[in-house]
Amino acid sequence: MKQPHGESVLSRATRILEAFTQDAPALAVSEIARRTGLHVATASRLVTELVAHGFLSRDDDRKVRIGVRLWELATRASPALSLRDAAMPFMEGVHDVVGHHVQLGVLDGDDVLFLERLSAPGAVVNYTRIAGRLPLHASSSGLVFLAHGSAELRERILVGPCTAYTSRTPVSPSRLRALLAEIRQQGYAYCPGYVHEDALGIAAPVRGDDGSVAAALAVIVPNDEHAHVVVPVVRTAALGISRALAVRGSTGHV
Amino acid sequence: MKQPHGESVLSRATRILEAFTQDAPALAVSEIARRTGLHVATASRLVTELVAHGFLSRDDDRKVRIGVRLWELATRASPALSLRDAAMPFMEGVHDVVGHHVQLGVLDGDDVLFLERLSAPGAVVNYTRIAGRLPLHASSSGLVFLAHGSAELRERILVGPCTAYTSRTPVSPSRLRALLAEIRQQGYAYCPGYVHEDALGIAAPVRGDDGSVAAALAVIVPNDEHAHVVVPVVRTAALGISRALAVRGSTGHV
Repeated sequence: MKQPHGESVLSRATRILEAFTQDAPALAVSEIARRTGLHVATASRLVTELVAHGFLSRDDDRKVRIGVRLWELATRASPALSLRDAAMPFMEGVHDVVGHHVQLGVLDGDDVLFLERLSAPGAVVNYTRIAGRLPLHASSSGLVFLAHGSAELRERILVGPCTAYTSRTPVSPSRLRALLAEIRQQGYAYCPGYVHEDALGIAAPVRGDDGSVAAALAVIVPNDEHAHVVVPVVRTAALGISRALAVRGSTGHV
Repeated sequence: MKQPHGESVLSRATRILEAFTQDAPALAVSEIARRTGLHVATASRLVTELVAHGFLSRDDDRKVRIGVRLWELATRASPALSLRDAAMPFMEGVHDVVGHHVQLGVLDGDDVLFLERLSAPGAVVNYTRIAGRLPLHASSSGLVFLAHGSAELRERILVGPCTAYTSRTPVSPSRLRALLAEIRQQGYAYCPGYVHEDALGIAAPVRGDDGSVAAALAVIVPNDEHAHVVVPVVRTAALGISRALAVRGSTGHV
Protein backbone atom coordinates (compact mmCIF):
# COMPACT_ATOMS: atom_id res chain seq x y z
CA MET A 1 0.00 0.00 0.00
CA LYS A 2 2.93 2.31 0.71
CA GLN A 3 4.34 4.44 -2.08
CA PRO A 4 8.05 5.19 -2.56
CA HIS A 5 7.67 8.46 -0.65
CA GLY A 6 6.23 6.64 2.34
CA GLU A 7 2.66 7.90 2.24
CA SER A 8 -0.11 5.64 0.99
CA VAL A 9 -2.26 6.49 -2.02
CA LEU A 10 -5.34 6.53 0.20
CA SER A 11 -3.71 8.96 2.58
CA ARG A 12 -2.86 11.33 -0.28
CA ALA A 13 -6.32 10.94 -1.78
CA THR A 14 -7.80 11.81 1.60
CA ARG A 15 -5.67 14.96 1.79
CA ILE A 16 -6.99 15.96 -1.63
CA LEU A 17 -10.63 15.44 -0.57
CA GLU A 18 -9.93 17.43 2.62
CA ALA A 19 -8.74 20.39 0.52
CA PHE A 20 -12.33 21.10 -0.53
CA THR A 21 -14.49 23.08 1.89
CA GLN A 22 -17.83 24.86 1.74
CA ASP A 23 -15.93 28.11 1.18
CA ALA A 24 -13.66 26.55 -1.45
CA PRO A 25 -15.80 24.01 -3.33
CA ALA A 26 -13.98 24.41 -6.68
CA LEU A 27 -10.19 24.29 -6.92
CA ALA A 28 -7.60 24.30 -9.70
CA VAL A 29 -5.07 21.47 -9.56
CA SER A 30 -2.33 23.96 -8.67
CA GLU A 31 -4.42 25.14 -5.71
CA ILE A 32 -4.99 21.52 -4.63
CA ALA A 33 -1.23 20.96 -4.75
CA ARG A 34 -0.67 24.07 -2.64
CA ARG A 35 -3.28 23.13 -0.05
CA THR A 36 -2.15 19.50 0.27
CA GLY A 37 1.61 20.03 0.00
CA LEU A 38 1.73 17.46 -2.82
CA HIS A 39 3.83 18.03 -5.95
CA VAL A 40 1.69 19.37 -8.81
CA ALA A 41 2.46 16.26 -10.89
CA THR A 42 1.39 13.97 -8.07
CA ALA A 43 -1.74 15.99 -7.36
CA SER A 44 -2.59 16.07 -11.07
CA ARG A 45 -2.21 12.28 -11.41
CA LEU A 46 -4.31 11.57 -8.33
CA VAL A 47 -6.98 14.09 -9.34
CA THR A 48 -7.25 12.37 -12.73
CA GLU A 49 -7.76 9.02 -11.03
CA LEU A 50 -10.26 10.45 -8.53
CA VAL A 51 -12.18 12.02 -11.44
CA ALA A 52 -12.21 8.63 -13.23
CA HIS A 53 -13.87 7.08 -10.14
CA GLY A 54 -16.37 9.93 -9.80
CA PHE A 55 -14.89 11.05 -6.46
CA LEU A 56 -14.10 14.39 -8.07
CA SER A 57 -15.49 16.06 -11.17
CA ARG A 58 -14.00 18.63 -13.52
CA ASP A 59 -15.92 21.76 -14.52
CA ASP A 60 -15.91 23.28 -17.98
CA ASP A 61 -13.35 25.77 -16.64
CA ARG A 62 -11.05 22.88 -15.50
CA LYS A 63 -11.74 23.54 -11.86
CA VAL A 64 -12.20 20.43 -9.77
CA ARG A 65 -15.09 19.75 -7.39
CA ILE A 66 -16.30 16.95 -5.13
CA GLY A 67 -18.07 14.42 -7.37
CA VAL A 68 -21.70 13.52 -6.97
CA ARG A 69 -20.68 9.82 -7.11
CA LEU A 70 -18.62 10.25 -3.94
CA TRP A 71 -21.61 11.90 -2.27
CA GLU A 72 -23.80 8.99 -3.41
CA LEU A 73 -21.40 6.30 -2.06
CA ALA A 74 -20.91 8.17 1.21
CA THR A 75 -24.62 8.81 1.73
CA ARG A 76 -26.66 5.84 0.53
CA ALA A 77 -25.46 3.41 3.20
CA SER A 78 -24.44 5.95 5.84
CA PRO A 79 -25.67 5.58 9.43
CA ALA A 80 -25.96 9.39 9.29
CA LEU A 81 -28.74 9.00 6.70
CA SER A 82 -30.81 6.57 8.77
CA LEU A 83 -30.55 8.77 11.85
CA ARG A 84 -31.47 11.83 9.79
CA ASP A 85 -34.40 9.93 8.19
CA ALA A 86 -35.83 9.07 11.61
CA ALA A 87 -35.44 12.65 12.81
CA MET A 88 -36.70 14.48 9.75
CA PRO A 89 -40.50 14.35 10.33
CA PHE A 90 -39.98 15.69 13.87
CA MET A 91 -37.55 18.35 12.67
CA GLU A 92 -40.03 19.52 10.03
CA GLY A 93 -42.73 19.83 12.69
CA VAL A 94 -40.48 21.88 14.97
CA HIS A 95 -39.43 24.04 12.04
CA ASP A 96 -43.07 24.71 11.06
CA VAL A 97 -43.82 25.92 14.59
CA VAL A 98 -40.58 27.64 15.65
CA GLY A 99 -39.07 28.78 12.33
CA HIS A 100 -35.44 29.97 12.36
CA HIS A 101 -33.10 26.94 12.50
CA VAL A 102 -33.62 23.34 13.55
CA GLN A 103 -30.57 21.08 13.46
CA LEU A 104 -29.42 17.57 14.21
CA GLY A 105 -25.86 16.87 15.37
CA VAL A 106 -23.78 13.86 16.30
CA LEU A 107 -20.62 13.61 18.39
CA ASP A 108 -17.56 12.96 16.22
CA GLY A 109 -14.22 13.17 17.98
CA ASP A 110 -14.17 16.39 20.02
CA ASP A 111 -16.75 18.20 17.85
CA VAL A 112 -20.42 18.21 17.00
CA LEU A 113 -20.88 17.23 13.36
CA PHE A 114 -24.20 18.50 11.96
CA LEU A 115 -26.13 16.00 9.83
CA GLU A 116 -29.08 18.20 8.99
CA ARG A 117 -30.29 21.75 9.27
CA LEU A 118 -33.61 23.32 8.34
CA SER A 119 -33.53 27.10 8.01
CA ALA A 120 -36.18 29.71 7.31
CA PRO A 121 -35.59 32.83 5.19
CA GLY A 122 -34.72 35.73 7.46
CA ALA A 123 -33.78 33.48 10.36
CA VAL A 124 -31.37 34.58 13.07
CA VAL A 125 -27.59 34.26 12.45
CA ASN A 126 -26.32 30.67 12.73
CA TYR A 127 -22.80 29.33 12.14
CA THR A 128 -23.99 25.74 11.78
CA ARG A 129 -23.72 24.10 8.38
CA ILE A 130 -24.71 20.67 7.16
CA ALA A 131 -21.55 18.53 7.38
CA GLY A 132 -20.04 21.38 9.39
CA ARG A 133 -18.63 21.23 12.91
CA LEU A 134 -18.81 23.25 16.15
CA PRO A 135 -16.81 22.78 19.35
CA LEU A 136 -18.48 21.05 22.29
CA HIS A 137 -18.10 23.76 24.95
CA ALA A 138 -19.80 26.58 22.99
CA SER A 139 -22.75 25.01 21.15
CA SER A 140 -25.98 23.85 22.78
CA SER A 141 -25.71 20.50 20.96
CA GLY A 142 -22.10 20.09 22.04
CA LEU A 143 -22.92 20.80 25.68
CA VAL A 144 -25.56 18.04 25.57
CA PHE A 145 -22.86 15.58 24.42
CA LEU A 146 -20.42 16.87 27.05
CA ALA A 147 -23.03 16.60 29.82
CA HIS A 148 -23.90 12.99 28.96
CA GLY A 149 -20.56 11.85 27.54
CA SER A 150 -17.68 9.97 29.11
CA ALA A 151 -15.69 11.46 31.99
CA GLU A 152 -12.62 11.15 29.75
CA LEU A 153 -14.18 13.33 27.05
CA ARG A 154 -15.33 15.88 29.64
CA GLU A 155 -11.90 16.18 31.27
CA ARG A 156 -10.18 16.47 27.86
CA ILE A 157 -12.44 19.36 26.80
CA LEU A 158 -12.48 21.12 30.18
CA VAL A 159 -8.69 21.47 30.37
CA GLY A 160 -9.10 23.68 27.31
CA PRO A 161 -8.19 25.89 25.68
CA CYS A 162 -11.84 26.77 25.03
CA THR A 163 -12.47 29.58 22.54
CA ALA A 164 -14.65 32.49 23.74
CA TYR A 165 -16.84 33.43 20.76
CA THR A 166 -18.65 36.07 22.81
CA SER A 167 -18.49 37.39 26.36
CA ARG A 168 -21.18 34.79 27.20
CA THR A 169 -19.32 31.69 25.96
CA PRO A 170 -18.56 29.40 28.93
CA VAL A 171 -14.82 28.77 28.97
CA SER A 172 -13.75 28.23 32.58
CA PRO A 173 -13.77 24.63 33.88
CA SER A 174 -15.80 25.62 36.95
CA ARG A 175 -18.52 27.38 34.96
CA LEU A 176 -18.62 24.51 32.45
CA ARG A 177 -18.93 21.93 35.26
CA ALA A 178 -21.87 23.79 36.79
CA LEU A 179 -23.49 24.16 33.37
CA LEU A 180 -23.12 20.44 32.56
CA ALA A 181 -24.65 19.45 35.91
CA GLU A 182 -27.58 21.75 35.16
CA ILE A 183 -28.03 20.26 31.68
CA ARG A 184 -28.04 16.73 33.10
CA GLN A 185 -30.52 17.75 35.78
CA GLN A 186 -32.97 19.74 33.63
CA GLY A 187 -32.68 17.58 30.50
CA TYR A 188 -31.70 20.27 27.99
CA ALA A 189 -29.07 22.91 27.23
CA TYR A 190 -30.12 26.58 27.11
CA CYS A 191 -27.40 28.75 25.59
CA PRO A 192 -28.03 32.49 25.18
CA GLY A 193 -25.35 34.19 23.08
CA TYR A 194 -22.67 31.50 23.47
CA VAL A 195 -21.72 31.39 19.76
CA HIS A 196 -23.12 34.75 18.62
CA GLU A 197 -24.58 37.56 20.77
CA ASP A 198 -27.83 37.63 18.78
CA ALA A 199 -28.56 33.89 18.79
CA LEU A 200 -29.74 31.45 21.43
CA GLY A 201 -29.41 27.67 21.14
CA ILE A 202 -31.60 25.11 22.88
CA ALA A 203 -30.63 21.43 22.57
CA ALA A 204 -31.99 18.16 23.93
CA PRO A 205 -30.56 14.63 23.78
CA VAL A 206 -31.80 12.03 21.28
CA ARG A 207 -31.20 8.59 22.78
CA GLY A 208 -30.48 5.36 20.92
CA ASP A 209 -32.14 2.10 21.95
CA ASP A 210 -29.25 1.38 24.32
CA GLY A 211 -29.98 4.62 26.21
CA SER A 212 -26.83 6.40 25.05
CA VAL A 213 -27.04 9.88 23.51
CA ALA A 214 -27.02 9.17 19.76
CA ALA A 215 -27.65 12.75 18.63
CA ALA A 216 -28.62 16.22 19.78
CA LEU A 217 -31.63 18.09 18.44
CA ALA A 218 -31.28 21.87 18.61
CA VAL A 219 -33.08 25.03 17.62
CA ILE A 220 -31.35 28.36 17.11
CA VAL A 221 -33.63 31.35 17.75
CA PRO A 222 -33.16 35.06 18.48
CA ASN A 223 -31.55 35.74 21.86
CA ASP A 224 -34.57 37.29 23.62
CA GLU A 225 -37.22 36.59 26.25
CA HIS A 226 -39.40 34.57 23.83
CA ALA A 227 -36.90 31.71 23.58
CA HIS A 228 -38.12 29.96 26.74
CA VAL A 229 -41.36 28.81 25.14
CA VAL A 230 -39.35 26.75 22.63
CA VAL A 231 -37.85 24.48 25.31
CA PRO A 232 -40.78 22.03 25.58
CA VAL A 233 -41.04 21.86 21.76
CA VAL A 234 -37.40 20.78 21.44
CA ARG A 235 -37.59 18.32 24.33
CA THR A 236 -40.78 16.71 22.99
CA ALA A 237 -39.35 16.33 19.49
CA ALA A 238 -36.07 14.86 20.83
CA LEU A 239 -38.06 12.27 22.81
CA GLY A 240 -40.12 11.53 19.71
CA ILE A 241 -36.99 10.91 17.63
CA SER A 242 -35.63 8.67 20.41
CA ARG A 243 -38.81 6.58 20.26
CA ALA A 244 -38.69 6.44 16.45
CA LEU A 245 -35.10 5.13 16.67
CA ALA A 246 -36.15 2.49 19.21
CA VAL A 247 -38.93 1.30 16.86
CA ARG A 248 -36.45 1.05 13.98
CA GLY A 249 -34.05 -0.87 16.23
CA SER A 250 -31.23 1.27 14.91
CA THR A 251 -29.37 3.58 17.23
CA GLY A 252 -27.52 5.03 14.27
CA HIS A 253 -23.96 3.92 14.98
CA VAL A 254 -22.57 7.16 13.67
CA MET B 1 -0.33 4.08 -8.76
CA LYS B 2 -0.77 0.56 -10.16
CA GLN B 3 -0.40 -2.40 -7.86
CA PRO B 4 1.30 -5.69 -8.82
CA HIS B 5 -2.07 -7.20 -9.75
CA GLY B 6 -2.80 -4.37 -12.16
CA GLU B 7 -5.62 -2.63 -10.29
CA SER B 8 -5.00 0.62 -8.47
CA VAL B 9 -5.53 1.03 -4.74
CA LEU B 10 -8.19 3.67 -5.42
CA SER B 11 -10.03 1.35 -7.75
CA ARG B 12 -10.09 -1.39 -5.09
CA ALA B 13 -11.09 1.08 -2.40
CA THR B 14 -13.94 2.25 -4.63
CA ARG B 15 -15.13 -1.32 -5.06
CA ILE B 16 -15.16 -1.69 -1.29
CA LEU B 17 -17.22 1.48 -0.82
CA GLU B 18 -19.60 0.28 -3.55
CA ALA B 19 -20.24 -2.94 -1.62
CA PHE B 20 -22.29 -0.99 0.94
CA THR B 21 -25.92 -0.26 0.06
CA GLN B 22 -28.98 0.96 1.91
CA ASP B 23 -30.07 -2.69 2.25
CA ALA B 24 -26.60 -3.81 3.37
CA PRO B 25 -25.16 -0.94 5.41
CA ALA B 26 -23.06 -3.17 7.72
CA LEU B 27 -20.79 -5.90 6.34
CA ALA B 28 -18.23 -8.32 7.76
CA VAL B 29 -14.83 -8.26 6.03
CA SER B 30 -15.51 -11.73 4.59
CA GLU B 31 -18.73 -10.41 3.05
CA ILE B 32 -16.87 -7.40 1.63
CA ALA B 33 -14.34 -9.79 0.07
CA ARG B 34 -17.17 -11.85 -1.42
CA ARG B 35 -18.98 -8.82 -2.85
CA THR B 36 -15.86 -7.18 -4.30
CA GLY B 37 -14.08 -10.31 -5.51
CA LEU B 38 -10.98 -9.25 -3.54
CA HIS B 39 -8.95 -11.75 -1.52
CA VAL B 40 -9.91 -11.64 2.17
CA ALA B 41 -6.36 -10.56 3.11
CA THR B 42 -6.46 -7.72 0.57
CA ALA B 43 -9.93 -6.65 1.64
CA SER B 44 -8.93 -6.79 5.30
CA ARG B 45 -5.82 -4.65 4.73
CA LEU B 46 -7.73 -2.06 2.71
CA VAL B 47 -10.60 -1.97 5.20
CA THR B 48 -8.10 -1.29 7.99
CA GLU B 49 -6.66 1.62 6.04
CA LEU B 50 -10.11 2.98 5.13
CA VAL B 51 -11.09 2.78 8.82
CA ALA B 52 -7.92 4.68 9.76
CA HIS B 53 -8.98 7.51 7.42
CA GLY B 54 -12.56 7.51 8.70
CA PHE B 55 -13.95 6.37 5.33
CA LEU B 56 -15.27 3.26 7.07
CA SER B 57 -15.98 2.57 10.73
CA ARG B 58 -16.04 -0.66 12.70
CA ASP B 59 -18.96 -1.53 14.98
CA ASP B 60 -18.64 -3.20 18.36
CA ASP B 61 -19.59 -6.45 16.59
CA ARG B 62 -16.70 -6.00 14.09
CA LYS B 63 -19.06 -5.23 11.24
CA VAL B 64 -17.91 -2.44 8.98
CA ARG B 65 -19.98 0.57 7.91
CA ILE B 66 -19.56 3.73 5.87
CA GLY B 67 -17.77 6.24 8.11
CA VAL B 68 -19.28 9.56 9.09
CA ARG B 69 -15.99 11.24 8.08
CA LEU B 70 -16.46 10.07 4.48
CA TRP B 71 -20.00 11.48 4.55
CA GLU B 72 -18.61 14.77 5.89
CA LEU B 73 -15.90 15.06 3.20
CA ALA B 74 -18.35 14.11 0.44
CA THR B 75 -21.05 16.47 1.64
CA ARG B 76 -19.53 19.69 2.96
CA ALA B 77 -18.21 20.93 -0.39
CA SER B 78 -20.59 19.02 -2.65
CA PRO B 79 -22.47 20.86 -5.40
CA ALA B 80 -25.33 18.53 -4.44
CA LEU B 81 -25.52 20.30 -1.06
CA SER B 82 -25.74 23.82 -2.49
CA LEU B 83 -28.46 22.78 -4.94
CA ARG B 84 -30.33 21.04 -2.15
CA ASP B 85 -29.93 24.07 0.13
CA ALA B 86 -31.48 26.37 -2.48
CA ALA B 87 -34.35 23.94 -3.04
CA MET B 88 -35.13 23.04 0.57
CA PRO B 89 -37.36 26.00 1.58
CA PHE B 90 -39.51 25.43 -1.53
CA MET B 91 -39.61 21.67 -0.95
CA GLU B 92 -40.75 22.18 2.64
CA GLY B 93 -43.55 24.46 1.45
CA VAL B 94 -44.73 21.91 -1.12
CA HIS B 95 -44.52 19.15 1.46
CA ASP B 96 -46.60 21.16 3.95
CA VAL B 97 -49.35 21.59 1.35
CA VAL B 98 -49.26 18.32 -0.60
CA GLY B 99 -47.89 15.82 1.93
CA HIS B 100 -46.75 12.40 0.63
CA HIS B 101 -43.32 12.75 -1.03
CA VAL B 102 -41.42 15.71 -2.43
CA GLN B 103 -38.06 14.97 -4.03
CA LEU B 104 -35.18 16.60 -5.85
CA GLY B 105 -33.19 14.71 -8.46
CA VAL B 106 -30.22 15.37 -10.73
CA LEU B 107 -29.16 13.65 -13.93
CA ASP B 108 -26.12 11.42 -13.38
CA GLY B 109 -25.13 9.21 -16.29
CA ASP B 110 -28.27 7.45 -17.51
CA ASP B 111 -30.14 7.70 -14.17
CA VAL B 112 -31.82 10.19 -11.91
CA LEU B 113 -29.89 10.46 -8.66
CA PHE B 114 -32.05 11.77 -5.81
CA LEU B 115 -30.43 14.40 -3.59
CA GLU B 116 -33.32 14.93 -1.21
CA ARG B 117 -36.69 13.48 -0.29
CA LEU B 118 -39.26 14.68 2.20
CA SER B 119 -41.84 12.06 3.17
CA ALA B 120 -44.92 12.12 5.37
CA PRO B 121 -45.97 9.20 7.61
CA GLY B 122 -48.58 7.10 5.78
CA ALA B 123 -47.59 8.49 2.37
CA VAL B 124 -48.15 6.53 -0.82
CA VAL B 125 -45.57 3.89 -1.89
CA ASN B 126 -42.37 5.41 -3.35
CA TYR B 127 -39.22 3.62 -4.51
CA THR B 128 -37.13 6.79 -4.37
CA ARG B 129 -34.40 7.02 -1.75
CA ILE B 130 -31.96 9.76 -0.91
CA ALA B 131 -28.75 8.91 -2.81
CA GLY B 132 -30.81 6.31 -4.70
CA ARG B 133 -31.36 6.10 -8.44
CA LEU B 134 -34.24 5.53 -10.86
CA PRO B 135 -34.10 5.02 -14.64
CA LEU B 136 -34.95 7.94 -16.89
CA HIS B 137 -37.80 6.41 -18.92
CA ALA B 138 -39.99 5.40 -15.95
CA SER B 139 -39.74 8.21 -13.39
CA SER B 140 -41.35 11.64 -13.73
CA SER B 141 -38.01 13.30 -12.84
CA GLY B 142 -36.16 11.16 -15.37
CA LEU B 143 -38.61 12.00 -18.14
CA VAL B 144 -38.02 15.72 -17.47
CA PHE B 145 -34.27 15.16 -18.02
CA LEU B 146 -34.93 13.05 -21.13
CA ALA B 147 -37.30 15.67 -22.56
CA HIS B 148 -34.81 18.52 -22.12
CA GLY B 149 -31.56 16.55 -22.45
CA SER B 150 -29.24 16.02 -25.39
CA ALA B 151 -30.39 14.16 -28.49
CA GLU B 152 -27.57 11.71 -27.82
CA LEU B 153 -28.92 10.86 -24.34
CA ARG B 154 -32.45 10.52 -25.72
CA GLU B 155 -31.44 8.16 -28.52
CA ARG B 156 -29.31 6.05 -26.16
CA ILE B 157 -32.21 5.57 -23.73
CA LEU B 158 -34.91 5.10 -26.38
CA VAL B 159 -33.16 2.17 -28.06
CA GLY B 160 -33.75 0.41 -24.75
CA PRO B 161 -34.21 -2.05 -23.29
CA CYS B 162 -36.58 -0.10 -21.00
CA THR B 163 -37.94 -1.99 -18.01
CA ALA B 164 -41.74 -2.11 -17.64
CA TYR B 165 -42.42 -1.72 -13.90
CA THR B 166 -46.18 -1.75 -14.47
CA SER B 167 -48.49 -2.04 -17.47
CA ARG B 168 -48.45 1.79 -17.60
CA THR B 169 -44.66 2.24 -17.85
CA PRO B 170 -43.77 3.79 -21.22
CA VAL B 171 -41.26 1.49 -22.92
CA SER B 172 -41.73 1.80 -26.70
CA PRO B 173 -39.66 4.45 -28.51
CA SER B 174 -42.77 5.87 -30.24
CA ARG B 175 -44.73 6.28 -27.00
CA LEU B 176 -41.69 7.77 -25.26
CA ARG B 177 -41.12 10.24 -28.11
CA ALA B 178 -44.73 11.45 -27.93
CA LEU B 179 -44.49 11.71 -24.14
CA LEU B 180 -41.27 13.73 -24.26
CA ALA B 181 -42.76 16.16 -26.80
CA GLU B 182 -45.75 16.62 -24.50
CA ILE B 183 -43.48 17.24 -21.49
CA ARG B 184 -41.52 19.87 -23.40
CA GLN B 185 -44.73 21.51 -24.57
CA GLN B 186 -46.63 21.55 -21.26
CA GLY B 187 -43.63 22.14 -19.01
CA TYR B 188 -44.04 19.17 -16.66
CA ALA B 189 -44.18 15.37 -16.58
CA TYR B 190 -47.38 13.68 -15.35
CA CYS B 191 -46.83 9.98 -14.73
CA PRO B 192 -49.73 7.90 -13.39
CA GLY B 193 -48.63 4.41 -12.31
CA TYR B 194 -45.35 4.31 -14.27
CA VAL B 195 -43.23 2.97 -11.39
CA HIS B 196 -45.99 1.55 -9.14
CA GLU B 197 -49.71 1.15 -9.94
CA ASP B 198 -50.73 3.09 -6.80
CA ALA B 199 -48.43 6.09 -7.21
CA LEU B 200 -48.38 9.08 -9.54
CA GLY B 201 -45.34 11.27 -10.13
CA ILE B 202 -45.40 14.89 -11.25
CA ALA B 203 -42.08 16.56 -12.06
CA ALA B 204 -40.99 19.97 -13.33
CA PRO B 205 -37.58 21.25 -14.45
CA VAL B 206 -35.36 23.38 -12.20
CA ARG B 207 -33.14 25.51 -14.43
CA GLY B 208 -29.65 26.76 -13.68
CA ASP B 209 -28.64 30.33 -14.51
CA ASP B 210 -27.47 29.17 -17.96
CA GLY B 211 -31.00 27.92 -18.72
CA SER B 212 -30.08 24.24 -18.66
CA VAL B 213 -32.08 21.78 -16.56
CA ALA B 214 -30.03 21.51 -13.36
CA ALA B 215 -32.51 19.36 -11.42
CA ALA B 216 -36.03 18.00 -11.38
CA LEU B 217 -38.51 18.69 -8.60
CA ALA B 218 -41.13 15.97 -8.19
CA VAL B 219 -44.02 15.01 -5.98
CA ILE B 220 -45.26 11.45 -5.60
CA VAL B 221 -48.96 11.25 -4.67
CA PRO B 222 -51.70 8.59 -4.82
CA ASN B 223 -52.68 7.62 -8.37
CA ASP B 224 -56.19 9.14 -8.39
CA GLU B 225 -58.22 12.04 -9.79
CA HIS B 226 -56.97 14.48 -7.09
CA ALA B 227 -53.43 14.51 -8.45
CA HIS B 228 -54.11 17.18 -11.10
CA VAL B 229 -54.41 19.97 -8.53
CA VAL B 230 -50.78 19.36 -7.51
CA VAL B 231 -49.40 20.32 -10.96
CA PRO B 232 -49.33 24.11 -10.45
CA VAL B 233 -47.81 23.66 -6.97
CA VAL B 234 -44.88 21.67 -8.37
CA ARG B 235 -44.38 24.01 -11.33
CA THR B 236 -44.42 27.11 -9.14
CA ALA B 237 -41.92 25.64 -6.68
CA ALA B 238 -39.59 24.51 -9.50
CA LEU B 239 -39.62 28.04 -10.93
CA GLY B 240 -38.95 29.43 -7.46
CA ILE B 241 -35.93 27.17 -7.01
CA SER B 242 -34.66 28.21 -10.47
CA ARG B 243 -34.85 31.86 -9.42
CA ALA B 244 -33.13 31.12 -6.11
CA LEU B 245 -30.29 29.42 -8.04
CA ALA B 246 -29.99 32.43 -10.34
CA VAL B 247 -29.69 34.76 -7.33
CA ARG B 248 -26.97 32.56 -5.84
CA GLY B 249 -25.18 32.53 -9.19
CA SER B 250 -24.62 28.81 -8.76
CA THR B 251 -26.23 26.41 -11.19
CA GLY B 252 -25.09 23.53 -9.06
CA HIS B 253 -22.61 21.82 -11.36
CA VAL B 254 -23.65 18.39 -10.17
